[in-house]
Formats: sequence, C-alpha cells, structure tokens
Amino acid sequence: MPVLVMKFGGTSVANLDRIRRAAKRVGVEVAKGYDVIVIVSAMSGKTNELVGWVNETSPLFDAREYDAVVSSGENVTAGLMALTLQEMDVPARSWQGWQVPLKTNSSHSQARIEEIPTDNINQKFGEGMRVAVVAGFQGISPEGRITTLGRGGSDTTAVAFAAAFDAERCDIYTDVDGVYTTDPRICETARKLDRIAFEEMLELASLGAKVLQTRSVELAMRYKVKLRVLSSFEEQSDEAGTLVCDEEDIMENNVVNGVAYSRDEAKLTLLSVADRPGIAATIFTALSDNGVNVDMIVQNISEDGRTDMTFSCPTDQVGRAEQALADIKGAGTLNFAELDVDAGVAKVSVVGIGMRSHTGVAAKMFQVLSQEGINIKIITTSEIKISVLVDRKYMELAVQALHEAFELDKAA
Amino acid sequence: MPVLVMKFGGTSVANLDRIRRAAKRVGVEVAKGYDVIVIVSAMSGKTNELVGWVNETSPLFDAREYDAVVSSGENVTAGLMALTLQEMDVPARSWQGWQVPLKTNSSHSQARIEEIPTDNINQKFGEGMRVAVVAGFQGISPEGRITTLGRGGSDTTAVAFAAAFDAERCDIYTDVDGVYTTDPRICETARKLDRIAFEEMLELASLGAKVLQTRSVELAMRYKVKLRVLSSFEEQSDEAGTLVCDEEDIMENNVVNGVAYSRDEAKLTLLSVADRPGIAATIFTALSDNGVNVDMIVQNISEDGRTDMTFSCPTDQVGRAEQALADIKGAGTLNFAELDVDAGVAKVSVVGIGMRSHTGVAAKMFQVLSQEGINIKIITTSEIKISVLVDRKYMELAVQALHEAFELDKAA
Repeated sequence: MPVLVMKFGGTSVANLDRIRRAAKRVGVEVAKGYDVIVIVSAMSGKTNELVGWVNETSPLFDAREYDAVVSSGENVTAGLMALTLQEMDVPARSWQGWQVPLKTNSSHSQARIEEIPTDNINQKFGEGMRVAVVAGFQGISPEGRITTLGRGGSDTTAVAFAAAFDAERCDIYTDVDGVYTTDPRICETARKLDRIAFEEMLELASLGAKVLQTRSVELAMRYKVKLRVLSSFEEQSDEAGTLVCDEEDIMENNVVNGVAYSRDEAKLTLLSVADRPGIAATIFTALSDNGVNVDMIVQNISEDGRTDMTFSCPTDQVGRAEQALADIKGAGTLNFAELDVDAGVAKVSVVGIGMRSHTGVAAKMFQVLSQEGINIKIITTSEIKISVLVDRKYMELAVQALHEAFELDKAA
Repeated sequence: MPVLVMKFGGTSVANLDRIRRAAKRVGVEVAKGYDVIVIVSAMSGKTNELVGWVNETSPLFDAREYDAVVSSGENVTAGLMALTLQEMDVPARSWQGWQVPLKTNSSHSQARIEEIPTDNINQKFGEGMRVAVVAGFQGISPEGRITTLGRGGSDTTAVAFAAAFDAERCDIYTDVDGVYTTDPRICETARKLDRIAFEEMLELASLGAKVLQTRSVELAMRYKVKLRVLSSFEEQSDEAGTLVCDEEDIMENNVVNGVAYSRDEAKLTLLSVADRPGIAATIFTALSDNGVNVDMIVQNISEDGRTDMTFSCPTDQVGRAEQALADIKGAGTLNFAELDVDAGVAKVSVVGIGMRSHTGVAAKMFQVLSQEGINIKIITTSEIKISVLVDRKYMELAVQALHEAFELDKAA
C-alpha cells in the first residue's frame, strides 16, 4: 500500500482532545488506503519545561543527558496517539527513535540523521498494522545514547521518514493553514499559495517565515519529497494547505511568489578599510568566530587603495560584532577609520523562481520603493530573490507596496 | 570498588531542589569509595498524570503503549540526576531500562525481571565513572518493547541491581525514616527498629506497612541483599533507618518485633455447609474467580455432616463475595443455610521470628486482649505471626495493649 507521512506539531497534540482530532485525520487517510507513518512532537510547552529543568540543573549541561531528558515528551505523545488510534479501531503502535532505530551521528542536541532502516516498520505494515506512530525529534547514536535533532527536529524526522519509505507525500500539520504570499498580519491581501517550489520555500524560510524549518525543506528538496503544510484546526480537503514541491510540478507561476521581511536587522559599515587580498576573510572570520550571523555583504568600489565594507546582522548581535572588530583592530590585524552602525533597519525581499526567466523584477522593485519615498540602503540578489535593507519604519509600507505591485493577491 | 545501590522514590526527587539533596547524599557515598548505582522514580505526581492520560484515552488500553507512556517520567529524573551529579564533579551518566538492558518477560505493566547484564555499567565504572543513574520501574521485553514492573517497581529494580552487581547494600530512600514496631499514629511509644528480618518485613508489608513493596523484600531475601530503609529528608549517619536483613545478621531479638493492623476487614460465615471433600475448593475458587482476596479462613468442627465456614476479606469486596456465593448456591453447586456478614472488623497481628523458638506468645496475646475486654472473632497463625480479627472499634486499643505487653517500646 502507498505510504503517507503525517506530522503533528506541539499545538496539534497539546492535549487529549487535540490528539483525538489529529487521530481522526489519520483515520481518514487510512480509510483512503494509505499505510501511515505519524510523526509527533511533544505536547506544546512540555519540551520547554524539560529544557528549563536541564538549564536550571546544569547551565553547561552534558548534551547526552540533555537529549535523554528532553526527548521524553515525544514518547508520551507517541504512546497516547497509538492508543487513540486503537480506540478508533485503527491498528497502530508507537515507536521511539531507538526502536526504529533512527540512526544519527553523535552530535548530541543537534544530531544529523544517518540512516532509517525500514524493515521493522514495514514488517508490521505487512502484518496488518496501518499506522506507525513515531516519536519525532530523536534518534540513537552509534554509542547507543539517545540523540535529538535540534530545533524543528520533528519536521526533519518527518521528511526523512518520507524519503526512507518513499512516501507519496509528507503532510506537516501545524497551526497555520499554509504558506502565504506575505505575512497576513502586515498585508490584508496576502494570499495562500496552493503550491510553492522548494527553492522559494527555502528563501522564505530563511527570511523568517516560520512555517517550516529550513533543514526539513533542504532534505525534502534533495530527496524530492512532496511536502504539504496545512492546518490541524480546519476541515481539510485534498487541496488544503500549500504543497511544497519540485518546480516542474508547478504549472503556472507568478514571476514573484512572495514578499518576505526580517524586522530586526542592523547595518554596519567599516569606513576606509585597506583594499587588499585577505581583508574580507579577516573581517568575516573574526565575526563568525564571535558568533555573529552575517547576512548581506556589500563592498563599495575602491578609491586610493581603500574601500568601505558594509554588512548586516541581527540587531542583538551588534555588540558582539563591535567587540570582534575592535579586537582585530586592536591586534593590528585590521585597519579601518570608523565603524558606522545603523541598528534601525529591516530587510524586505521578493522571491520567485520566475525571476530566472523574467527580467525587470529588480527595476520594478526599486521603482515601487522609490515611488513610496523609501530609500534603499543595501541591495543583494540571488537567482530567485532580491533583498533590500530599508529604514525599519518603512518596512510594512514596502511589503504592502511590493505585494500590490507584483499582483500577489491574484493567482497565476 | 565496592558497589552500593541507592534508590530514591518520587517524593525524594519531587523537584530540582530535592534532586540536589539526593545527589548530595550520593556524593557522600562516592566519597567513601563506593561505586554507586542510583535508581530513581519519576518526580512525584508525574506517573499518576501519565496514567490518567492513558486511562482517559483508552480505558481498556494496550499495555504495551501504557508502558511506553508511563515509563517516561523516570527517564526525566535519571537525566536530571546525572546532570546534578556532574555539576558536583561526580562522574555520572544516566541509563534508561533498555540501555542497560534490564531484560524482562513480556507481561506488560507487570513484567518480571529476567536478567540484568552488568557489563555495560561495569565497563563505565572501570573507565572512572562513579555513579550509574538508572531509570527505575522499567525494562525491555524480548520483542524490544518497553515494559514496566508494576506498583513498587522502582524498589524491585533497586534490589535486582543490588543482586546483579553483588552490592554491599541497597539503600531505599523514602519519606519515612525506617520501619517501626507499629504505626506511630496509633501508638505513641512505637519505636524505630534498627534491624528487622526479611521474613518479619514480609509479614509486616503484606499486613499493610507501606514502607517497602512485598515483591522487593522477597527478591532481597532470595538473593540475600541487605536492604536499608531510610528517610531522604533527614541528616543521615551509617546507623540511620532500618536494615532489613537475614535473621543471622540480627544478634538479639525480641520475641515479638512488630504489631500490625489492617482496618477495613469483613468476616463472612457460611452457616451449615455440607462437610464433604471438594466443598472448600468450590467456595474459594468461586470467590477467587470473582476477584475476592480471601485472607483468613477458619472451618469449625463438623456436626451431623454439616459445618460452618468463616473467612475474611477487605470490606469493599463483600458485595462481590455475596454475589459469588449466591451464584453457586443458585446453580446448586453449593448448599448452605445462611451467609452471615460482619463488615465491622479489623485484623491485628503480632509478628516476630523469635516465636519460632519461644512458646506462649499466643497465650499472652489472648490474655492481653481478654484483659481489655476485647472479644476475638477469628484466629490464624503462621510460624512467625499470630493474627486475630476483632471488632473495629477495639483495633487501636488492641494495638496499644499488645505493643505495651510485649515491651516493643524497649530495644532487645
């Protein structure tokens, strides 16, 4: 029988009523003829409680014990979900990560999946079991210790199971009903997308659309797993939610499919840096070593052997960036006249795989912003994305204007 | 290095402060040179919460899923205890049941321990680890599913580890400071015993002294594990608590070491039953099949081929007993004139291994009760115990009078 993977996040299994609701949805897919692998998170709040206890007990905790403790929430949900399905006469059983076994490396608290053998679960499917409920977020190391996969680990678990079992689709049930052209809280005309390409989803995810973890989208793209994001709180049809898929599976596309934003950005400019080979490496190695996540980087044309170097990072990392740069200046490794910090900016981006074959998107974007009187501070582009930094106070306006100009309220 | 097993119950690990307190006690034993195996229960209340969820989800639950869910509380405590010990610079790690592996049979929710291999933990002790923190109450079945050991399973886990690792002693930390000659709430002069024999402890445990589970005492007796019961809420010396041990390890003994009671008993008498072979079997099979736990049984002398049969059971099982007896009477399997029920009785017992070699204990007991004007309704005796049923209103008086008469307030 074809296999379907269904993943339920913490809010979708927050209590026994919600678990029942989720189980009913699983029952619908079983009735359609699927063998279903259900991936569950811990009841919402449980993992945070456990993490809190670990942090209070041991601020610099042994990650192996952290994993042993925080993985327990998923085990509870998995057992309760299996029982709920059994009550509905759906043959089901639970699996903890080590029982599958979901094999990972030994990077505790952020382990990478290495292998998911399918024989145990497939044998049970062969014996008439219809649903394997798997505790998400966890696996087992080569040393036999419990590992966890880090933030968003249950999404990643779901996609990895879909790949291993060659599932027809991986449905991610969450508290939003899909992926939108932009944030509906900022732009009233935001429209839910029926389909979106993996590449676009990756750009949107990394820009802050918190629907899916970047890592699970990357994994889905690599193994061509069709991912569907949908709400566990609404009645569903087969067309519900948003399908994240290969771009070949999308018939028609707008040139631009989404407008994303990131509110808390800072722009830092090193004025009058010596323009010679190795300088950029010196700067960004120092920043990286100090835990600064540099996003956009722009280097202006050089004059008289000196140049200005501008980059952006999250506002809460500005202090660390200043320290790192002062350190290398003090050590004589780097020479610059001044560090100019603007902590009041935001990033706005337009994303669309259609840009690959359409020209004029950048021009149109700049024109729209200019008409609204919004000054652009930095521009960066990729094959399917154009991002600009603007004053934070213009962020909402920029998103709304771009959404309208690229007609994102209308389907392709 | 010699091995010590230390078990902490739910109230002893109820929160992070109490876990720290327990860890300090472990640290003291490590400093003395012991390699320590710590067995932990779930934080108090956690297991009941999980059991509640399972019952609400599925009244006739799949015991395999029940076990997967309810075992998770111990895993949390084990990890937190290991982290706490590490913070105190004591090399420690946690083990879940399946990691040891603690092998059980497949009787889910009441599994029996079959084997505890010592190589994994001993290897770590050899590498310098000083404390193995083991999640109590759980194991793994031959099929690779998680099992739990039933009520009191963590005590049983502790004794089984002490036997497997040939531990010097198994210390059970709980919320009482030892085993008393009788219930201090009833008798002001009740005295904590320094030592008690396994056999006596078994009689006391089955009579309702809730300090240790009967099963763990049986296991300790079979493997000659020295068990110590002590409070986790008081400062401890080496002499603290009560040592439950082989009777050879007890130099001096009172003839009677304890007075136990059981409050909610009922006495049922079948009047004029045909006295022929097979009748007792018929009666007590019917009662057992209906879930009645019969305790004392007395058969009077026969007259004219008919006899009276009296037995006792907990008051809340009287209804079931009446039904069972009415059924076999109705079916013609049993003939009796009348069923007389007295639901207002209590059982009082004196226990002591000294009775084996001393005569006159029964006579003294009956004399004391008679002096207090307490009528005895049933008597049963074993090698080290004499029990009587009396009117419930005399229970406290009987306990106090016997405690005084046998001078239990004074050490041997």
